[in-house]
Amino acid sequence: MSIVHDYLDANQERFVAELFEYLQHASISTQSERKQELLACVEWLVAHCRSIGLTARAVETSGNPVVLAQTPYRPGKRPHFVLYGHYDVQPPDPLSEWVSPPFSPVIENGFIRARGASDNKGQHFAHLKALEAYLHTGTELPCDITIMIEGEEEVGSHSLPTFLAAHKAELACSALVISDTTIPAINLPGITCALRGLVSAEIHVIGPNRDLHSGIYGGAVENPAMVLCQLLARCRDEIGDVLIPSFNDTVRELSSEEQADLARLGGDETAFCQKLGVTGTLGLPTLNVPMKTTAKPTFEVNGLAAGYAGEGIKTIIPSSAVAKISMRLVADQHPKTAFNALENYLRSLCPANVRLEIAAGFLAAPYSLDSTNPYLSAAISALRVAFIIPVLNDHKSLSGSPRVDS
Amino acid sequence: MSIVHDYLDANQERFVAELFEYLQHASISTQSERKQELLACVEWLVAHCRSIGLTARAVETSGNPVVLAQTPYRPGKRPHFVLYGHYDVQPPDPLSEWVSPPFSPVIENGFIRARGASDNKGQHFAHLKALEAYLHTGTELPCDITIMIEGEEEVGSHSLPTFLAAHKAELACSALVISDTTIPAINLPGITCALRGLVSAEIHVIGPNRDLHSGIYGGAVENPAMVLCQLLARCRDEIGDVLIPSFNDTVRELSSEEQADLARLGGDETAFCQKLGVTGTLGLPTLNVPMKTTAKPTFEVNGLAAGYAGEGIKTIIPSSAVAKISMRLVADQHPKTAFNALENYLRSLCPANVRLEIAAGFLAAPYSLDSTNPYLSAAISALRVAFIIPVLNDHKSLSGSPRVDS
Repeated sequence: MSIVHDYLDANQERFVAELFEYLQHASISTQSERKQELLACVEWLVAHCRSIGLTARAVETSGNPVVLAQTPYRPGKRPHFVLYGHYDVQPPDPLSEWVSPPFSPVIENGFIRARGASDNKGQHFAHLKALEAYLHTGTELPCDITIMIEGEEEVGSHSLPTFLAAHKAELACSALVISDTTIPAINLPGITCALRGLVSAEIHVIGPNRDLHSGIYGGAVENPAMVLCQLLARCRDEIGDVLIPSFNDTVRELSSEEQADLARLGGDETAFCQKLGVTGTLGLPTLNVPMKTTAKPTFEVNGLAAGYAGEGIKTIIPSSAVAKISMRLVADQHPKTAFNALENYLRSLCPANVRLEIAAGFLAAPYSLDSTNPYLSAAISALRVAFIIPVLNDHKSLSGSPRVDS
Repeated sequence: MSIVHDYLDANQERFVAELFEYLQHASISTQSERKQELLACVEWLVAHCRSIGLTARAVETSGNPVVLAQTPYRPGKRPHFVLYGHYDVQPPDPLSEWVSPPFSPVIENGFIRARGASDNKGQHFAHLKALEAYLHTGTELPCDITIMIEGEEEVGSHSLPTFLAAHKAELACSALVISDTTIPAINLPGITCALRGLVSAEIHVIGPNRDLHSGIYGGAVENPAMVLCQLLARCRDEIGDVLIPSFNDTVRELSSEEQADLARLGGDETAFCQKLGVTGTLGLPTLNVPMKTTAKPTFEVNGLAAGYAGEGIKTIIPSSAVAKISMRLVADQHPKTAFNALENYLRSLCPANVRLEIAAGFLAAPYSLDSTNPYLSAAISALRVAFIIPVLNDHKSLSGSPRVDS
């Protein structure tokens, strides 16, 4: 391995210069007028992968292309791994908040500052450079690797399911590695081995066929905004637990190892509150913030609209009211089952004198990696070697595995 | 009296023509760009009052002028009555809904159609014509009368309290007659002898200093939109009763006469629901619609706004949430007491991890006239004579007195 490490050390300056080239591309997927810059980024990326020695191509989709880059195929039964990344970035607005231009990378105190540096160009570029070090030094890789870099992560990855289905055979692999997450802290590396799922829904309560004068009709006609409040109020208790019947039935409790990991992630709750401008957190005082935000499902009201909420007052019974809600799921909850439980519950609570409409939005399953998974052990070992310092979920020396959210 | 009646009969055609002149003035108080038309209306009205034989003037206020017209003062101790009306009208929008132009009056099936015909120019114009009949026939009035016609009724009568205080002596009277209400039905005349009061308020629940990602923070940070729903949900039960402690303490129960009047006002509840597009009414099945809308206080959510309620979904914890609410009060509730009860209740319920701001809007006391009031009896007698058919709250022949809302 020393030849590989020597290559990495000898070429670091060039690697950074190349990463800067990559970061200079304003590959913003949320703004269609930046499409040419995004495609220029794809062209640069494919060429760069080829220069490393990978077989690379941009695969057209109904949205932005997916870049597929593969190590030279070696006959034999080596395991195959797929590495995921995305070349698209968030828009840099508001521009006035940037201390240096977002697409002109700079190094400051050992950190690269540029749009996309950590989300997510930097991560998969490091993977590419690792492959380059193997390929350019003629060191045999212990596995086949495909790097799949998409361009719609920031806009919902709409083309990805179709792409994956169409390339199922080519992408069949022992494990998929995603580096589009974080580590708990710079001095606490860790592997993200669980992601919460998501159910979103739009709830309409529909009453009279027009806004009514609350003086003339109030008391005789049900108020859809009040009904909406009463329905939502009964979905969550004051410590944040979801009250929907059967919703929590399949929730997998954290293992003692997971609990121990989360306990170590505590951090300064006073600073957390100060940063957010709140006087306290939600939930049981016995739980720390990482436990509250990862171990349990949630029910959130994301938006409310009804009647007149502008300046002054209109004394009306609004004709209808709407809420946007979302629920985070943990292992082993199922999004469709969770949505159905919500719908059944709300229908059972809703009075007959208004109409309830509820439509599902996102339905994403939670993910949780078994802590005995051999590839997880391999990843933890690699992290231990690379970081030297202890790794959070290295249960050979420590304990636990954190759930981190999508 | 026959000379007065003869005068009225002989001049009806001219009266209608004059009313049409009055109705042609677009005296819209909600649109400041119509101010000139509103002032032209005032000028016409003062001149018309003078032509009748009244002492009339337009009194400037901080808003629109109040027209004061008085019968010639006769030494002696006759009772003094004040008649209230308003010359301002609602805007006629949407204009496409009018089958004839709003400020070009027409007669159709015995009804005048024009903006302001029934709200409220027609009513006080009838009063003016009654006075004209007395004055032009030289018939002695049994009382002194002041007609006070304001121009801000449709925008909240903001200048009226100051005006009334400044003209207290001049307006001192035995009774004030307001004709800016309705009768239960064209074949059921009645005197409105109670009006519900009103408390409006704006409620803000304020959480984190910005919208937060519900995946990263959900479970650890309280959701202001959820708190708002939970607070409002506990203000009213499923039959419409207000749940605020002490709020209902002073509510005066209806007398048996009032209950009997309201029972007679039943109407077709199926048709009521069909017209509004609802499948049923709110409240106890033993009560009819007039009872539900007049006998009890109410709590209404008039508007809600929080987070993102547009197309799609933003999975956020909104930084804050706002509700506009209003409460109708009945005798003998007090608006300030009711507002304080609401504020105390919400503060007692609100969790400590969010901030609650609550501001009072309108505070209007309920009004209820004692059924033994001699002026009420006089008004009922007059109505009996004028309409020939039975009068709702004529308890010499019938029973009860309805509460009708402002």
